[in-house]
Amino acid sequence: MDSRRAESFSDGVFAVAITVLVFNLLPIADDTAATRGIHALTAQHLADHWPAFLAYLVSFLTIGIMWLNHHTMLGQVTKVNRTVLALNLFLLMGVVAIPFPTALVADHLNDSEGGKVAAVTYGLVMMAIAVGYAAMWVYLAAHQRQLGAIRRVRTPRLSTFRFTAGNGGYIIGTLIALVSPVAALIIFGLLAVYYLFEHLPAPGEIEQGEPPPGQDPTL
Amino acid sequence: MDSRRAESFSDGVFAVAITVLVFNLLPIADDTAATRGIHALTAQHLADHWPAFLAYLVSFLTIGIMWLNHHTMLGQVTKVNRTVLALNLFLLMGVVAIPFPTALVADHLNDSEGGKVAAVTYGLVMMAIAVGYAAMWVYLAAHQRQLGAIRRVRTPRLSTFRFTAGNGGYIIGTLIALVSPVAALIIFGLLAVYYLFEHLPAPGEIEQGEPPPGQDPTL
Amino acid sequence: MDSRRAESFSDGVFAVAITVLVFNLLPIADDTAATRGIHALTAQHLADHWPAFLAYLVSFLTIGIMWLNHHTMLGQVTKVNRTVLALNLFLLMGVVAIPFPTALVADHLNDSEGGKVAAVTYGLVMMAIAVGYAAMWVYLAAHQRQLGAIRRVRTPRLSTFRFTAGNGGYIIGTLIALVSPVAALIIFGLLAVYYLFEHLPAPGEIEQGEPPPGQDPTL
Amino acid sequence: MDSRRAESFSDGVFAVAITVLVFNLLPIADDTAATRGIHALTAQHLADHWPAFLAYLVSFLTIGIMWLNHHTMLGQVTKVNRTVLALNLFLLMGVVAIPFPTALVADHLNDSEGGKVAAVTYGLVMMAIAVGYAAMWVYLAAHQRQLGAIRRVRTPRLSTFRFTAGNGGYIIGTLIALVSPVAALIIFGLLAVYYLFEHLPAPGEIEQGEPPPGQDPTL
Repeated sequence: MDSRRAESFSDGVFAVAITVLVFNLLPIADDTAATRGIHALTAQHLADHWPAFLAYLVSFLTIGIMWLNHHTMLGQVTKVNRTVLALNLFLLMGVVAIPFPTALVADHLNDSEGGKVAAVTYGLVMMAIAVGYAAMWVYLAAHQRQLGAIRRVRTPRLSTFRFTAGNGGYIIGTLIALVSPVAALIIFGLLAVYYLFEHLPAPGEIEQGEPPPGQDPTL
Repeated sequence: MDSRRAESFSDGVFAVAITVLVFNLLPIADDTAATRGIHALTAQHLADHWPAFLAYLVSFLTIGIMWLNHHTMLGQVTKVNRTVLALNLFLLMGVVAIPFPTALVADHLNDSEGGKVAAVTYGLVMMAIAVGYAAMWVYLAAHQRQLGAIRRVRTPRLSTFRFTAGNGGYIIGTLIALVSPVAALIIFGLLAVYYLFEHLPAPGEIEQGEPPPGQDPTL
Repeated sequence: MDSRRAESFSDGVFAVAITVLVFNLLPIADDTAATRGIHALTAQHLADHWPAFLAYLVSFLTIGIMWLNHHTMLGQVTKVNRTVLALNLFLLMGVVAIPFPTALVADHLNDSEGGKVAAVTYGLVMMAIAVGYAAMWVYLAAHQRQLGAIRRVRTPRLSTFRFTAGNGGYIIGTLIALVSPVAALIIFGLLAVYYLFEHLPAPGEIEQGEPPPGQDPTL
Repeated sequence: MDSRRAESFSDGVFAVAITVLVFNLLPIADDTAATRGIHALTAQHLADHWPAFLAYLVSFLTIGIMWLNHHTMLGQVTKVNRTVLALNLFLLMGVVAIPFPTALVADHLNDSEGGKVAAVTYGLVMMAIAVGYAAMWVYLAAHQRQLGAIRRVRTPRLSTFRFTAGNGGYIIGTLIALVSPVAALIIFGLLAVYYLFEHLPAPGEIEQGEPPPGQDPTL
């Protein structure tokens, strides 16, 4: 199957998943409607819901950057087989789930116990997705010839150090969530910004400063 | 009409339908918010909602695999007429409805009576979709010439035995739902995995081991 | 602007709007969850919600057929200007709103007074969309040269009689809604089926049985 | 990265965001269902919710026009780099958020205090998006060579006066929201109509009446 098709379906899924995040903001308007008479819509009411806005910001950046790296990764091959499609499906299953831990964080970040449960769940979902990305990349590198790779895809060893370092950040963030859920959420946001600039090498970029074929010491 | 157009619209529908599944997880965050003070968000609270996570997993795989087979099927022709579009619409009507039985299962799998009603409804929707796929395929095979088939499409007889076998699984699963809704849901999940590898022959694959034209004993 | 772009954006909107219809089914699972203990999920509970299922069926077919005719219409030109884009936006505003009258009908079809209000609202939205389609077509026909029409687009006079007849059906259906909301909803469903086969002439079809240029008696 | 890809992802996000607006209408059906017995669905009940319909109209036009200008802007270059993608992500974050202030306005426009908070929030979101558009355009103009601009993109000075004037309208509207939220919402609607006809020059249009290269007094 042409990899274009899998990409265009994935694009649609990413676009919907990122837009679904706004549904965690809508109850801020609704729940005052339900309690109309008890307390009206005030600037203070909006300010009190800062965890929902912070969670929206972090998850939006995260899904956006994931979309970007998804394209970079699938852009290195021209064909996909059933295994790639299955891996892609597991990856998307994690991405589509992101609004759920986002909702947990938006509703419970200020709870003494609930905040930790929410932030840890957030971190675990991120780690599951990171594992999915790594699995996909290892598979693409190992089967690049039969997948019609545009150029040689390196097995993620040395060249992926910084990529992996970012994944390690999710583990650290999840551990920090046990102490301070707010700090953990900020770390998850910074990781998204980090991935925006430190990322999987794009097909064109990897060639710069790369040893000539046959002399690659990292393989 | 060019079949590409129908495919791209269908892709969009599949992408939205698969993402809508997360809406069955969001109330897990919300309903604790509503009962804040009665019981907070705890790990136990999340674990208690395992039917919702299981239903998400099964339906996500199911819609993902259906998207895949939808592409394989429509990829065999280059043009579509009004009848194909009407069949496609009925097919999509079933796919878009999947979040509904998923919600039934997510909310009621542990109920003594409700669990059975939920799982049976799930199975009935799956069977309706399976009938839709079969109808589409029979029509495509019967009108392949006027639909500009890339290569000869076989009427689903012998070659579709394993495909049909999978559909039989939905009937068995629905019957088992009358006894054990959980077992039925697991069967529906396994059927999705089954279809990932045993599937409609793709335009390229079917040619392998196929008798030369004019000697096909299955027609 | 290339008409392709407007079409692909419209496709996305249609795909999301048609999938949003399932949100009118989800409360059927939820409201029993809210009243758990009072009455469990039973087959009877599902059967009692037949208006929601009927509304889903009618609106799904309607949006699906609208997508089809939208394509046929925009497929007759190769370029679009700001006026076409504005007309298209008004048209889509009606299509995106369809889940709202669908929700009214799903929740209130059995109410003595509410059923009529719901079905009349449904009919009014349909009529607004029909006006949008007619306006778009008249504009496309009048400006076909500057919009790079693939072939001569006829002003909707005689050739559109049956198309207009369908629109008349919405007026009749809305009037009937004042007496029997259920009958009106069935009429709206039949109109969708009618439009599936009696429709705007596609670029290729219109040429059959058409008088040679310069002798067209309908202009 | 090819700018086409970023455009197609953005298209998907716009299409979903514009369709999500209908979710602010659905509770009009639901909340009568919850209070069934207290007051039924009547024409009066629908008329009482006019702020929700007005908010739907204004936000639908706004997102529609933003989609249009987004295309015009990205259509001037053929490649995008990480900075453009980051700017685009911030822009889309604002667009996706629009259903939230729309919900505030839909639910609270008639509240004495809440109406002002809602309309001011609406205006602030619009201003944030306008800043995003301006930042994107300035960046595209400054890096047009490396982004493969189809033709010379002018820095937004004189030529953008009318575009900027529109942005100024959002500031005025937000100030008016402090006095009359309804008037502010109408102004936001008129600004959308204004942008439909007064807009960023499209690649083809800008050349008309433009001074020959090397003599442009506005640079």
